[in-house]
Amino acid sequence: MNTNGSLAGVRVIDLSHVLAAPFCTMILADLGAEVIKIESPAGDDSRQFGPFVEEKDSINEQSAYYISINRNKKGICLNLKTKEGKEILKNLVKKGDVVVENYRPSTMKKLGFSYSELKQIKKDIIYCSISGFGHDSLPEYADKPAYDMVAQAYSGLMSITGPEGGPPCRVGSSIGDIMSGHQAVIGILAALRHRDQTGEGQHVDISMIDGLVSILENAIVRYTVDGEIPEPLGTSHPTIVPFQSFRTSDDWVVIPIGNDTLWTNLCEALERGDLKDDPRFRTNPRRLKHKKTLIPILEDIIKIKTTREWLDIFANHNLPASPLNTIDKVVNDPNINHRGMIQKINQPRVGEMKIAGSPFNLSQTPASVRTHAPLLGEHTDEILSNLLSYNQKTIKQLRKKGVIK
Amino acid sequence: MNTNGSLAGVRVIDLSHVLAAPFCTMILADLGAEVIKIESPAGDDSRQFGPFVEEKDSINEQSAYYISINRNKKGICLNLKTKEGKEILKNLVKKGDVVVENYRPSTMKKLGFSYSELKQIKKDIIYCSISGFGHDSLPEYADKPAYDMVAQAYSGLMSITGPEGGPPCRVGSSIGDIMSGHQAVIGILAALRHRDQTGEGQHVDISMIDGLVSILENAIVRYTVDGEIPEPLGTSHPTIVPFQSFRTSDDWVVIPIGNDTLWTNLCEALERGDLKDDPRFRTNPRRLKHKKTLIPILEDIIKIKTTREWLDIFANHNLPASPLNTIDKVVNDPNINHRGMIQKINQPRVGEMKIAGSPFNLSQTPASVRTHAPLLGEHTDEILSNLLSYNQKTIKQLRKKGVIK
Repeated sequence: MNTNGSLAGVRVIDLSHVLAAPFCTMILADLGAEVIKIESPAGDDSRQFGPFVEEKDSINEQSAYYISINRNKKGICLNLKTKEGKEILKNLVKKGDVVVENYRPSTMKKLGFSYSELKQIKKDIIYCSISGFGHDSLPEYADKPAYDMVAQAYSGLMSITGPEGGPPCRVGSSIGDIMSGHQAVIGILAALRHRDQTGEGQHVDISMIDGLVSILENAIVRYTVDGEIPEPLGTSHPTIVPFQSFRTSDDWVVIPIGNDTLWTNLCEALERGDLKDDPRFRTNPRRLKHKKTLIPILEDIIKIKTTREWLDIFANHNLPASPLNTIDKVVNDPNINHRGMIQKINQPRVGEMKIAGSPFNLSQTPASVRTHAPLLGEHTDEILSNLLSYNQKTIKQLRKKGVIK
Repeated sequence: MNTNGSLAGVRVIDLSHVLAAPFCTMILADLGAEVIKIESPAGDDSRQFGPFVEEKDSINEQSAYYISINRNKKGICLNLKTKEGKEILKNLVKKGDVVVENYRPSTMKKLGFSYSELKQIKKDIIYCSISGFGHDSLPEYADKPAYDMVAQAYSGLMSITGPEGGPPCRVGSSIGDIMSGHQAVIGILAALRHRDQTGEGQHVDISMIDGLVSILENAIVRYTVDGEIPEPLGTSHPTIVPFQSFRTSDDWVVIPIGNDTLWTNLCEALERGDLKDDPRFRTNPRRLKHKKTLIPILEDIIKIKTTREWLDIFANHNLPASPLNTIDKVVNDPNINHRGMIQKINQPRVGEMKIAGSPFNLSQTPASVRTHAPLLGEHTDEILSNLLSYNQKTIKQLRKKGVIK
């Protein structure tokens, strides 16, 4: 097994902030890439997002939010508005394979760091942008500011999430940022493969809104094929029945019946052979058609036992089912811990804290959480002297001038 | 520009069904890989999921659901329970770079196609499994059946999605499947890089539950650091204020205020300089603390104008904001169409239909929708004769015996 990860040897110059691009570079770092995160003297905005693990209202106060998505990275603090700061960035890019950024297109242009400019410095650089609407957009859209919430609302995902008949809801985590972060990783890895085979770099232009439109799944075809405008459906699936949560006598249980064999098993588990034989319910298209008849029948049966009792019964009938776990149950779950999905990190001045692990379980080159998230400017000196060969005197002068921190 | 895509030359043997693994192989195919999808004579379960584009209640009826996630693939129909079917699969694996499957671990073992068996046939094969709990799980978990709903419920994502104080809700698309589908692509591309550099294949073991635990974001640290059990919050963000939807006089508008400069701009847009100067609201931690005072003030201001009026005002103040689009607006949006996110596909017997495009906008090797989704067994003959050099007589016999279709 190679504990350096599958991306060992790939260097990422990370101009990311807040969530989408930091999530992308976190995945790259977890997989073994060397990620050098560049922050302005004010620090990444997300250092201001709670919860906090130090009790001090300053920019150096440590945010658990920031820590959880910036582990495994090195941090350098650079004022990119100064001539010397720009010079340092260009020197980093010369030594890099990949640049990742999620500023608005005009910001990178103003700083002099657009793709067309940076490829002059490093011809085969892979330059990945994550933006709300996408760099290649109609003129009135390209530079619109966007956050996760904008992507969730604009993409239509919010319009199909929420209780039946109720108000639209946001997905409980920032899926607009996180999905585009994953898609950026895919784009970068695909581009790296192309570079390795042809020597050619390129611009990977990821949009948060594109990212969520691409995962609307059957909602798109329900509209384009049937003319239906999909609406929120609580926990139930729009085209598969039964596939939803049911109240038990003490909590909830979730039952997804994805094919007709499972339906037969469910009828047996509920001791209702009559339902199995009922022609109205024999196939999924028929169950969908008779959903309003079927669901109340199932509700009445399921509400009389506890969640634990039903889970045991369903397990005996080889049926997929789940409790509706809250986060405390997740963090303490034996199998989720066995899978390494809850990791301890040793953060300076804070000590040990628990964060989510990495889902990339590769038998030979597993992803891993190796190092803590950088304090603001923690690796400035190390990177300037070791990677860029700046001497101590120059570093001192740059610090005095406010170029670095 | 190279229209073959960045993964041209990569051959994927696709044992996927329903959604998680089909989504993975769809992305690989969109990026240019040759994907050969193997279906049993009964066909992928998702051929039974609506909406349907042919009016016929049989397994050959075409499902728009199936079509939308299986474009760009070739389809071969194979009975893997027969000796000859197994033989054909092994011959395909010998010619493949990647195997993708999302059956339960015991199913692949029973068929004789576990990783340890297939690597005997092709030493450097990259074998990607997507399962609910993960192959490397505690004994009582590894083989538990799971669907998207199970992943959403078990991972805790459902417990933080929904209206404030209301019942938990499912994310409106099957994010448990789709997230793990993306993560499988990342694992495969990372493993391909490792193989290209070292000659070594490996097993990529992706779990749908891991996948969603990895994206719970601040919900994990809110519990591990603060002991809070996060709950659904409607459209609002747990740690950033204001960051939610507001009712306007005619609809909704979404306003994410991610930093203090945006807060200042918002106060100006609302013509409420007094709020800007109010020390209770000056920083995000303070706005979070005084959320219950602040939000009703904002609600009273925002409800008096229309969504269109507010969007114009916010745009003039350089503020991120969004309407709450329904799917019809998304499909017809000029910029989403400009980005190629709504694609026309020409499906046999159906004609032109619209599906979601690909979000992988690579300047030199863009992803694309090139071919329709296979009819059941559409490419059986082509693949057997061209790729595996079976002669027409053998193919005829295999068909007669029910090995292929």
